[in-house]
Amino acid sequence: MTGSCADLYEIRMAASYLRRGMLGPATFSLFARKLPPQRGFLVAAGLADCLDFLQDLHFDDAELAYLGDVTRLPEADLAALGRLRFTGDVRAVPEGRVVFADEPLLEVTAPLPEAQLVETALLNFTTFQTAVAAKAARCHLAAPEADLIDFAARRTHGLEAARAVARASAIAGFAGTSYVAAAREFGILAAGTMAHSYVEAFPDERTAFRAFAADFPDTAVFLVDTYDTPHGVRTAIEVARELPAGSDIGIRLDSGDLGALAVEARRMFDEAGMTHARIMASGGLDEHELADLAAAPIDVFGVGTRMGVSADAPSLDSAFKLVEYEGSPVMKLSAGKRTAPAAKQVYRGETGQPDLLALRAEDPPAGREPLLVPVMRGGERMGETEPVSAARGRFERDLRWLPEAARSLTDPAPVEVRWSPALVRLAGEVQGSLKAKYGLSSVL
Amino acid sequence: MTGSCADLYEIRMAASYLRRGMLGPATFSLFARKLPPQRGFLVAAGLADCLDFLQDLHFDDAELAYLGDVTRLPEADLAALGRLRFTGDVRAVPEGRVVFADEPLLEVTAPLPEAQLVETALLNFTTFQTAVAAKAARCHLAAPEADLIDFAARRTHGLEAARAVARASAIAGFAGTSYVAAAREFGILAAGTMAHSYVEAFPDERTAFRAFAADFPDTAVFLVDTYDTPHGVRTAIEVARELPAGSDIGIRLDSGDLGALAVEARRMFDEAGMTHARIMASGGLDEHELADLAAAPIDVFGVGTRMGVSADAPSLDSAFKLVEYEGSPVMKLSAGKRTAPAAKQVYRGETGQPDLLALRAEDPPAGREPLLVPVMRGGERMGETEPVSAARGRFERDLRWLPEAARSLTDPAPVEVRWSPALVRLAGEVQGSLKAKYGLSSVL
Repeated sequence: MTGSCADLYEIRMAASYLRRGMLGPATFSLFARKLPPQRGFLVAAGLADCLDFLQDLHFDDAELAYLGDVTRLPEADLAALGRLRFTGDVRAVPEGRVVFADEPLLEVTAPLPEAQLVETALLNFTTFQTAVAAKAARCHLAAPEADLIDFAARRTHGLEAARAVARASAIAGFAGTSYVAAAREFGILAAGTMAHSYVEAFPDERTAFRAFAADFPDTAVFLVDTYDTPHGVRTAIEVARELPAGSDIGIRLDSGDLGALAVEARRMFDEAGMTHARIMASGGLDEHELADLAAAPIDVFGVGTRMGVSADAPSLDSAFKLVEYEGSPVMKLSAGKRTAPAAKQVYRGETGQPDLLALRAEDPPAGREPLLVPVMRGGERMGETEPVSAARGRFERDLRWLPEAARSLTDPAPVEVRWSPALVRLAGEVQGSLKAKYGLSSVL
Repeated sequence: MTGSCADLYEIRMAASYLRRGMLGPATFSLFARKLPPQRGFLVAAGLADCLDFLQDLHFDDAELAYLGDVTRLPEADLAALGRLRFTGDVRAVPEGRVVFADEPLLEVTAPLPEAQLVETALLNFTTFQTAVAAKAARCHLAAPEADLIDFAARRTHGLEAARAVARASAIAGFAGTSYVAAAREFGILAAGTMAHSYVEAFPDERTAFRAFAADFPDTAVFLVDTYDTPHGVRTAIEVARELPAGSDIGIRLDSGDLGALAVEARRMFDEAGMTHARIMASGGLDEHELADLAAAPIDVFGVGTRMGVSADAPSLDSAFKLVEYEGSPVMKLSAGKRTAPAAKQVYRGETGQPDLLALRAEDPPAGREPLLVPVMRGGERMGETEPVSAARGRFERDLRWLPEAARSLTDPAPVEVRWSPALVRLAGEVQGSLKAKYGLSSVL
């Protein structure tokens, strides 16, 4: 990905800053303005892609020629864009951590043109992956004992999204993914057996199951609903009897009343002495269906589209806002979109305590953990790309911290985020001076 | 993209078919099972990416090694996967055409392993891009006289999605995009001026506007809501007065009551003799807000997140189903997911007539146009990659054909899709023989 992975206005602004020598350090803060109503928390994700993007940022000659046509900028300005690389610092909440509205997920401090230019890419990676990780986490909360497998690849918004969904859901509690490219790239468990077409391509269901068991003796999981589920389960049991003792056997239910069918299938397997057979269910599931199926004897769920597009909240109201330029705090006063000035830090306490949003320059409060940590300095990553398991570990730890009210599937209440007195004071001062400057008697 | 851009079960099934010599021709049909409630029609999109994917399909050595670890398939089976290329035929509804539920967007006929393997990728490209094109089309219907600009890149599901959204919305009536990489790749108008940060980085708003107008005299569109919109409009007018006569000037409104602010801004511009100044609005818009703003004097809308994630219907209930294998029609009977057998064609008549879903083998009915056309033969594209304008032309033509009821923004009624008598007969026969084979007295 290159510099053209940006909105045109960012390139115009960056070029204008470069031409005017406005190269002072700027801090932009990336955060969600508010949570969707069905979310009690978010799960930070997307940082790895942000850092890859920043490390590689540049315009190639063909892009510069195109930008010359579009913007009519003179050669000297295009050449300045051509020399631009990301040389700044990034502080971020590590992936897997639980976060809330108003809390910066990431802060970029860099020469103004560089920091401006990366807005769209950083927002894109962070907004989407954080939204999906939160959705996946809710699925995990709804079925904490089951293995959840990401089945979303066929209906995510592109295959790059499928990759990101596999990774984000693995961070947020999923056991594996059906999407091979992502499983391979990230070392996630790859899962999947057969489709209805497999059953249909053989002369009958029994022949199909036998063929599959012969070819994949480690994964004899049969899809039983192509024609009639109870019939399919009986056939699965008969074919399973022909396999060596100790074979890994199971069925997948993909339509109908999954809970009732699972009870019936469990009974049939147990009566056949196959208590080790595993029952998998899939088909239009989300956290609410998973909660409804909590009592059903289902060991594995394939969770697809609704998780992978975060169907009830397919985006977050995220923002990437200038908060400081050349050492001075900055804010905007736009109706309903007022921002808080200056570089910040988020401090977290015990379960039940509000989070604290403070100025980065403040002394840290005692007994609280800062969430933002340095991840890039002078355009270079600090440390290696970490495995998914590292983020998964943070997620599991934060989930234990998360209060009950925020975990609710139906009526979640996020943890409160309080502003520090120093931040309140600074916001008042900056707002007051802007009001005076622009002759505003009141600000919405 | 390579063969690993698939779900694991597709690779398992393909390997099993290859090992068993099940290489007979299979036809899979890709369609939406039903439309989301808020959609009266879909707009076919995503075919170009499907064809690119098919033409390049292969597994490289590293993928095969990984698959050996995951599936424990012997070398000979992996080697067979390694030799696999897509050698089949594709018939598809060309991009930009209006389509409905049940109508195949695409049919693949190929040796069974190849056709099975491409399921996830083809579903992914087609489902997402068709969903977004339909959402964009509704925005265009809501504001047919305005120029709509895609502003979604920051919150689409990845940057590949941003690229697809720019293209799909350009097919479905948008005038341009803010996303530079896509504008450049597809020859779409690139649009964009300044962000709030630009205004904030200068000592004051007036200085910022002057700088911008100096650097981009062709695009003097000022963002006026950073501090106070009426103040911003006054400043914009004053700065515009300093520009050479005939300069292209305008403002962008991004918060507050866009309709009322646009009326006020229009009045101020007109009083200043700047009747040519253009007013742009943005901020959380979708087709419903656009319809509400129909009477406002707004010339250009930036339409972002809600269009780019198709917020009220972020996926379609799409399917890729085996309908024919080795010349025999195939169907599944799964509860609520029954499919129609055999390769098909869709015939369209005059406005007001139902579409006709027929067997491909039937004689075409008189006076109707077939929607599916050959696009790939023997694994090779038929013809060059077409420009976006070709799909846009089809969209505009189909939009004129589309009945009023299907265009409704609030309570749309899709065009009916009738099955031909021959299709009804064949489905009954196949279902009857399956019921007999599996001893089913009734099928849901």
